[in-house]
Amino acid sequence: MAPDQAYRDLTALWRERALLESCATLLGWDEETYLPEAGVEVRAEQHALLARLEHERATDPRVAELLAEAEAALVAAPDPVVERNLQLMRRDHEAAVCVPASLIEELARTTTRAQSAWEVARDDDDPAPYLPVLARVVELTCAWADCVRGEHSRYDACLDEWEPDLTEAEVVATLAALRAPLASLVDRVLGAPRLRAPALPSISVAEQREMSQAAARWIGFDLRGGRIDLAAHPSTMRIGPGDVRLTTRFDPHRPLRGLLSTLHEVGHGIYDQNLPAEYFGTPVGEATSLALHESQARLVENVIGKSLGFWRFAQPGLAQVAPALAAFSPDDLVHALCQVERTTNRVHADELTYDLHIAVRVDLERALLRGDLRCADLPGAWQEAYARVLVRPESDADGLLQDGHWAAGMFGYFPTYTLGNVIGAQLVAAATQALGELDAQFAAGDFAPLLGWLGDRVHRHAGLLPARAILERAVGAPLAPAALLARLTEKYSALYRL
Amino acid sequence: MAPDQAYRDLTALWRERALLESCATLLGWDEETYLPEAGVEVRAEQHALLARLEHERATDPRVAELLAEAEAALVAAPDPVVERNLQLMRRDHEAAVCVPASLIEELARTTTRAQSAWEVARDDDDPAPYLPVLARVVELTCAWADCVRGEHSRYDACLDEWEPDLTEAEVVATLAALRAPLASLVDRVLGAPRLRAPALPSISVAEQREMSQAAARWIGFDLRGGRIDLAAHPSTMRIGPGDVRLTTRFDPHRPLRGLLSTLHEVGHGIYDQNLPAEYFGTPVGEATSLALHESQARLVENVIGKSLGFWRFAQPGLAQVAPALAAFSPDDLVHALCQVERTTNRVHADELTYDLHIAVRVDLERALLRGDLRCADLPGAWQEAYARVLVRPESDADGLLQDGHWAAGMFGYFPTYTLGNVIGAQLVAAATQALGELDAQFAAGDFAPLLGWLGDRVHRHAGLLPARAILERAVGAPLAPAALLARLTEKYSALYRL
Repeated sequence: MAPDQAYRDLTALWRERALLESCATLLGWDEETYLPEAGVEVRAEQHALLARLEHERATDPRVAELLAEAEAALVAAPDPVVERNLQLMRRDHEAAVCVPASLIEELARTTTRAQSAWEVARDDDDPAPYLPVLARVVELTCAWADCVRGEHSRYDACLDEWEPDLTEAEVVATLAALRAPLASLVDRVLGAPRLRAPALPSISVAEQREMSQAAARWIGFDLRGGRIDLAAHPSTMRIGPGDVRLTTRFDPHRPLRGLLSTLHEVGHGIYDQNLPAEYFGTPVGEATSLALHESQARLVENVIGKSLGFWRFAQPGLAQVAPALAAFSPDDLVHALCQVERTTNRVHADELTYDLHIAVRVDLERALLRGDLRCADLPGAWQEAYARVLVRPESDADGLLQDGHWAAGMFGYFPTYTLGNVIGAQLVAAATQALGELDAQFAAGDFAPLLGWLGDRVHRHAGLLPARAILERAVGAPLAPAALLARLTEKYSALYRL
Repeated sequence: MAPDQAYRDLTALWRERALLESCATLLGWDEETYLPEAGVEVRAEQHALLARLEHERATDPRVAELLAEAEAALVAAPDPVVERNLQLMRRDHEAAVCVPASLIEELARTTTRAQSAWEVARDDDDPAPYLPVLARVVELTCAWADCVRGEHSRYDACLDEWEPDLTEAEVVATLAALRAPLASLVDRVLGAPRLRAPALPSISVAEQREMSQAAARWIGFDLRGGRIDLAAHPSTMRIGPGDVRLTTRFDPHRPLRGLLSTLHEVGHGIYDQNLPAEYFGTPVGEATSLALHESQARLVENVIGKSLGFWRFAQPGLAQVAPALAAFSPDDLVHALCQVERTTNRVHADELTYDLHIAVRVDLERALLRGDLRCADLPGAWQEAYARVLVRPESDADGLLQDGHWAAGMFGYFPTYTLGNVIGAQLVAAATQALGELDAQFAAGDFAPLLGWLGDRVHRHAGLLPARAILERAVGAPLAPAALLARLTEKYSALYRL
């Protein structure tokens, strides 16, 4: 056998997995956007099959042998990309062989059904029929975590899926470092006079779609290799190189919410479009850290989308699409977007309360996985936690039914939003040092310097380096919440004249 | 082993194939509707993988053994459904093992690329970059046909894919029986005064979409288990039970064309929605005859969609959606739809010239597969054939680029349209005998009796019986063009007062 034959066999196997996964992603996109309601059952079977085929490849008995051979060949001919791929492949394989195929298949089938049940429950504002399905997802997730966690907690196992090596302890510590300073900043802001922000008019969904398309283009999302569609929940799905799909949603009576949601996904989307296509199908070709991914999304949404510079540039163009915007100055619009409030909704929360929404979810999902909280008790537990930290929701639709993550089996995903906020602030501070004042650039429509810097320092590294190494190289320091607290304190002190 | 274990293993294997195929169908739907242009390369790889996985299952060495065991068990415990499934499975397996997996994969990859090249060529009205890709499709199709055809012609092998047991000789004979009588009827009609049909106004795409949705619902297409989307080419794709998707297209300046195209797909769609869900994933659960399928499409399009009864019922409702229609009487609209003309476009051809369009395509594709015509010479050959039979197209976009069947590798598909016209006329004659005058029912909005009769006599039999048996049970006679010629002669003699 040629020295690199084992490695070539491994990459061929991984490419098959990537293609199966990309088919599953397209199916998932279709469920969010266009699947007829009676099509859910067949869809669940399609997912179950694809998941099983992928798992068969992940657990293929040849993999262990091929890995050993390829690792031996690597010693003779070192290559950093091969080395990193083999590391990631070994890690993946060792986790995969712990899980029975039947469990993987059952998880795929159950989460497809649960997502459909969640949508119905949210539309009907009735969690009752959804909670038993969710309970089954929790049960299967616990079974899965017990297969892979070793000495670690179930929550550690879940976190590892989204953010390799992140621990429950670190998540708890990061949220603890943010909770009190953010709560006190919120108190101070809410003690000051509200920002003067005139009531915004209704804007039709058609106009909002056009506004979002325009803003996505300005910031750098390539619509030749991507799309933006309407869906129940905003998200970004990378089918593969040249095919990155954003979903978003619009409420005519909340005319800027949809734009901000779209900008969030644009941050994800540009990252995905910048992943090196030549590595598609191998582990180094994927963005392995969700926290880095969320940092890009939260950054485009908040640092760009809620800046005076962006609105100075964007307001005239957007007002051409939606004439009702013509009566509002860039300052008016920033004030409308930076109004701080204790609300019930995470996605549309302001920058100061956002991480408090995350903290509620993290507490609850940790309790679910420890077995300290039953799904049947979730509606009450949610209400109480929100009443304590923010404000009691008036309905379950505004409460635990607002997010579909748990239905999709995505436990341990929520912390990546907060880590993303933290990392985003660190990146912006470093980018400002390198590129000068960003707001002036945004005001001139120059988003390319910042996005180019991010592409170079973050996106193009994909899975070639561990997330911590990418961050430390980009900002010269490890993960730390100080930059986020500093950015928010400075911005909101100025806005509210504290 | 339990007596029916072999059969159970076979059906499990077939179900996997059906699910892989249904994933591929969804990918295909996405290509027609929403795929970003830069996503084609990854899509081709996805198709190649799914096609290979399906082919692996079709050629699995266990199949021959399992078939033998299941056939032996059947003798002891006869069951007509099991018997038919085993027949169809054996037929499928024996064809599949003749074809190397690499060829199947290459065909999937090449036809994905060719369809994309076709769309570009049609939009640019330039066949040059498309023809070499098409030549590769023809080459691979010939290679495939040579693997499976045995003593038969390549065209026989292609026909068999769409219409089991149909032969090139039968196709030639059926077209021969229609060509002269249709041509002479066309001559007589064109010698008579044109129908008085006022020029129709433009209708926006949005209004046409709504008209089509309404008409689809009236006739019985269930939108809970299906969708209608815009695409370059009208088609029907069944992802599975509960998920049947139609595509259609609208031209504001041809306000009824899109509706008629939609009705054509509605005929396919209702058939697909009536297939017995309990047999999904086994051969008897599929409609195995494309000619029967096309008969339903052509029947809804022409027998319903171009009838005075339909328009008496539909005109008021459609005029509410598209107020421009209010000025036109049902007679006006039928006259507009039944105007006979020698044109260049198959999809929108009138009922009398339609089968002449098919005859041109069948002649050309037979020549391509025999090797008597090169793709490079196709534009000229198309022009000449059209000039001889109908009228010379002014562009290739209006010529050989109008249909995507060949790009998709669908050689031998075109004859099923003509057989569909023939069968449709036979079914309508039998349905009229059973149900009474249909036009009066249509005028009352009663489409359910006819569609119910078709569901009972045709749709629900799926693959449980051979197509010829379904037809003979439904109409009491074998395939014969007399009913079509009689229906067209009667309808057009009355319209044109011949």
